Amino acid sequence: MGVDFWHELAQQLRADSVRAAGAAGSGHPTSSMSAADLMAVLLSKYLRYDFDDPENPANDHLVFSKGHASPLLYSLYRAAGAISDEELLSFRKFGSPFQGHPTPAIKWVDVATGSLGQGLPIGVGMALAGKHLEGASYRVWVLCGDSEMAEGSMWEAVEHAAYYGLGNLIAILDMNRLGQTRETMYGWDGGAYERRVGAFGWHTIQVDGHDPEEIDRAYAAALEEQDRPTMIIARTKKGRGVSFLEDREGFHGKPVDPEKEEQAVEELGGERNLVVEVRKPEEGAGRAVEKGLSDELKLPAYEVGEEVATRAAYGDALKALGAARRDVVALDGEVSNSTYSEKFAEAHPERYFEMFIAEQQMLAAAVGLSVRGYVPFASTFAAFLTRAYDFIRMAAISGANLRLCGSHAGVSIGEDGPSQMGLEDLAMMRAVHGSAVLHPSDPNQTARLVAQMADREGISYIRTLRPKTPVLYSAGEEFRIGGSRVLRESDEDRVTIVAAGITVHEALRAADELHDEGVAARVVDAYSIKPIDAATLKAAAQATGGRVVVAEDHWPEGGLGEAALSALAGNGELEFRHLAVSGMPGSGSPGELMDAAGISAGHIANAARELLAKSRSA
Amino acid sequence: MGVDFWHELAQQLRADSVRAAGAAGSGHPTSSMSAADLMAVLLSKYLRYDFDDPENPANDHLVFSKGHASPLLYSLYRAAGAISDEELLSFRKFGSPFQGHPTPAIKWVDVATGSLGQGLPIGVGMALAGKHLEGASYRVWVLCGDSEMAEGSMWEAVEHAAYYGLGNLIAILDMNRLGQTRETMYGWDGGAYERRVGAFGWHTIQVDGHDPEEIDRAYAAALEEQDRPTMIIARTKKGRGVSFLEDREGFHGKPVDPEKEEQAVEELGGERNLVVEVRKPEEGAGRAVEKGLSDELKLPAYEVGEEVATRAAYGDALKALGAARRDVVALDGEVSNSTYSEKFAEAHPERYFEMFIAEQQMLAAAVGLSVRGYVPFASTFAAFLTRAYDFIRMAAISGANLRLCGSHAGVSIGEDGPSQMGLEDLAMMRAVHGSAVLHPSDPNQTARLVAQMADREGISYIRTLRPKTPVLYSAGEEFRIGGSRVLRESDEDRVTIVAAGITVHEALRAADELHDEGVAARVVDAYSIKPIDAATLKAAAQATGGRVVVAEDHWPEGGLGEAALSALAGNGELEFRHLAVSGMPGSGSPGELMDAAGISAGHIANAARELLAKSRSA
Repeated sequence: MGVDFWHELAQQLRADSVRAAGAAGSGHPTSSMSAADLMAVLLSKYLRYDFDDPENPANDHLVFSKGHASPLLYSLYRAAGAISDEELLSFRKFGSPFQGHPTPAIKWVDVATGSLGQGLPIGVGMALAGKHLEGASYRVWVLCGDSEMAEGSMWEAVEHAAYYGLGNLIAILDMNRLGQTRETMYGWDGGAYERRVGAFGWHTIQVDGHDPEEIDRAYAAALEEQDRPTMIIARTKKGRGVSFLEDREGFHGKPVDPEKEEQAVEELGGERNLVVEVRKPEEGAGRAVEKGLSDELKLPAYEVGEEVATRAAYGDALKALGAARRDVVALDGEVSNSTYSEKFAEAHPERYFEMFIAEQQMLAAAVGLSVRGYVPFASTFAAFLTRAYDFIRMAAISGANLRLCGSHAGVSIGEDGPSQMGLEDLAMMRAVHGSAVLHPSDPNQTARLVAQMADREGISYIRTLRPKTPVLYSAGEEFRIGGSRVLRESDEDRVTIVAAGITVHEALRAADELHDEGVAARVVDAYSIKPIDAATLKAAAQATGGRVVVAEDHWPEGGLGEAALSALAGNGELEFRHLAVSGMPGSGSPGELMDAAGISAGHIANAARELLAKSRSA
Repeated sequence: MGVDFWHELAQQLRADSVRAAGAAGSGHPTSSMSAADLMAVLLSKYLRYDFDDPENPANDHLVFSKGHASPLLYSLYRAAGAISDEELLSFRKFGSPFQGHPTPAIKWVDVATGSLGQGLPIGVGMALAGKHLEGASYRVWVLCGDSEMAEGSMWEAVEHAAYYGLGNLIAILDMNRLGQTRETMYGWDGGAYERRVGAFGWHTIQVDGHDPEEIDRAYAAALEEQDRPTMIIARTKKGRGVSFLEDREGFHGKPVDPEKEEQAVEELGGERNLVVEVRKPEEGAGRAVEKGLSDELKLPAYEVGEEVATRAAYGDALKALGAARRDVVALDGEVSNSTYSEKFAEAHPERYFEMFIAEQQMLAAAVGLSVRGYVPFASTFAAFLTRAYDFIRMAAISGANLRLCGSHAGVSIGEDGPSQMGLEDLAMMRAVHGSAVLHPSDPNQTARLVAQMADREGISYIRTLRPKTPVLYSAGEEFRIGGSRVLRESDEDRVTIVAAGITVHEALRAADELHDEGVAARVVDAYSIKPIDAATLKAAAQATGGRVVVAEDHWPEGGLGEAALSALAGNGELEFRHLAVSGMPGSGSPGELMDAAGISAGHIANAARELLAKSRSA
């Protein structure tokens, strides 16, 4: 190993990046070429990774935060002897795991990247686990682009990495000056990055990103750090090594012209077949997380007749889960006394991570912890989870196992006003690949669902209520994700009321009103909004002449109403009334606001009466 | 004016904050009290604002980024003589404009705040207009909390304000040390903020936030700045002035105990009725934006038979709008050569703002520009608009008039893979209060819709396609928001196919296939997904025996399929097939990916055949 080898290896990575993008007819070779020297030195000397055992807990993590440099990543795999040239050249082809941007369809990729500004905050989560949960020796290397430094989420990562003293995190900034359409904000002003990142408390090192010796020294210096994250700010040239690409505008995200590809590869010294023996981690250095129950799970129990907010039950259940399972960790966006994750934090402080008011970093850290095998629960107000939607979307592509809790659902929060009301969270979370969306109305139900979320793969979301509500179900009842509960049912039912969360309580009052008028109404507590219990909804609709009222504390679009319509489509004649929040709410008491929104008991009963009157007149 | 007056005024603001929250039984008096001295000096000496004429374009802007300090804001209104004590004490009551967090239900409030980290980036938009569009003398004052400095969006604002040299922007950091549940990351370390913000190029001043003379000098120094934004970092105490609240934990977001309120007000020197004569801006100093058409609008025209991507048509139409209207401005997240907003940027560079890869700041700047009366169009990939969902949600509460464009919709983008595919944008944007959601399939249609978006109030969203598609409509055709187009229709139609965007082209091919088999299919181009053309869908369903196939390039939840179901609910028997993207896509050609997702012509034709077979067997 030495300068000449590193240079040769870097040239191979460049040539392979050009060849892969050429074979695909698309991709980002120039953004790969700038970082080739940085990665050549890393792969051959510093990275500790067992390609035969990607699940080895002692492996380092390598995250391409600039996911569009995927040709470089895949060229690294080839150089490590992990994939063949043929596999490399399947880049971006249908069915190939070597997609346009990295995803865990490749077994050596921990998380999907390609939405810029996510790799570094996710790396923070991986490094948090190493430093604060495992006392482990693995390192987290994150290759960052300079354009993505404009994303606020990068600065959330910068501040949290410093705050948590993540000496095991090394960011490598590929400062190639050129973004997609123009020069970045700071161009080649490495000092600009150094001053900014340094001001947050990071160790920073400026290097010539095409000088392997400087790079080598920088990595060595980074490894010396115990309590400060390091950013290596590497001045590089986009398209490095090819005369007609190097440092030129207009070549972002484009393969080399087919007629010029041969010349490009030639300028890079032609094809090579160097293979690097990547250093494996020390035997037994890592320790896999202890998964599942280590103690009996003692969920909280509430008496029928008590009044308990579902958000409080979330906290109680999370605390109980934490006692029974050592893999459960919790994060919150500095509202833990509102979401009640504080109950977990007080009981298990070593497994609670305060993410302050930085919801993107909270989500990203949860993804990073999920990669390490933990069972993260992340909570904030439902409204503020919208802040992290891109991270949730990408977490689904990553196949991350996340549990999210959004408290303060809908207008039922009362006086705080619309900025604090989660009114789009159901739509947002339903439209996440593979998600479960839960909205309990009762604390015992909440506790059961929280326990199930811990075991569920993919992204699970639970929506909780601010106000206290009466306990409806006994503590022994089972509630499964995908189920529902029929709260009122008789052979005389003439209308179905479907509700979830706060509107379950309104629906029960409406059913009582109707009952007093001699009308039997079936009431379905559709606490599992996705997957929804289509069978129960269909049966209820059929039993009640197709008359269905849905009431929800959410905008009309994308929530329970439309979930119910999707479940009922093709189920025969339907007479449907959808009560949801359509006007912009203000402040007021929960009762005033639910009434103004048209989702209170009186409105539900009226909608039922209208449906019945319509049938009679038909 | 002088120290004694400022002190008295600040005490009044504090007492009024306590009284307002007391009357409401909720709210954030302690977070108001910390900033009272800062606001007393601002109101009485520096703010230039005509409370009788909030539309005066020369008025300064005052944004409470820490929106929970609303009691302080409303107390300022009382001190300015703008509202009565009775109005102040209507705080948080149902029907009062003085809501829990400020919204433009109050005529002096420009934008809703309460989701932290938004006021400063919105202030950047207002200041951009003043400095770069109007050459105006108004200033933008933003009161920030210290907790919200953890939000990445604050750092997006910090970097953009410096980059654009916004000397007219003054951020006032109320560093009261205490967040909701604990001390902030940096506590009272004013140097931590100064180093960080200063490293980005801001002018910074540390002051004792309870010393009116220091505050006075700091504001005066800020006004001297021409090309650098200023942050005044004020060390303050939460609950300042009341012995049992000052700098104590556990009092965030809580009114004073009713039995202690009298004591608190007494410690603050009792109730006062000071009224400040707020300085008005100079007569004629401001210039309102010239609204509407100043030249004839010459929309681009495309010939039937050409192939043009709708994203290119967006760019052409935006450029044409910019030529005809001087109030139109454009912003992009450094992907203008993908969204084609570059066409506008090239033609009207003085009205184009590069927001780099910072989608939250892009949205916030658009909101700020909308406050100044401009007609902003902001574009990025549809997938990356998810990054700014909280800003879009809050913009709806602000009543902002925004036009958003999300390009690269769905799997039809091809090789780039799922991280770049907008697959949840329809669900996200439909669940925004008062939004319009448009998804054209044709460039002439796109151009017409872009023109209409400029005139529409509220938030309008247009979703464009990456690939070129054939021109379907002639350049003269009108398309209105809320409409649809029936592309195939006959008296023999036996099934309806509803599509939008790329699936319109697939639907037409499917109809051709079916036609060859002797089956007439009605094809509806539902380009306006919200509001949806319910009348046309109902008529089509009724004419085709209730058989409806919907095909969309989006996840199954919250998009066109559910919009159609909502429109068709209660319209009689429905046989429904919903084709949407349900599995996680990878890379591949658009055709391969649409086929794999089950939304291509063949799948649409099959779904129609199934519905017909089902009817025959029934």
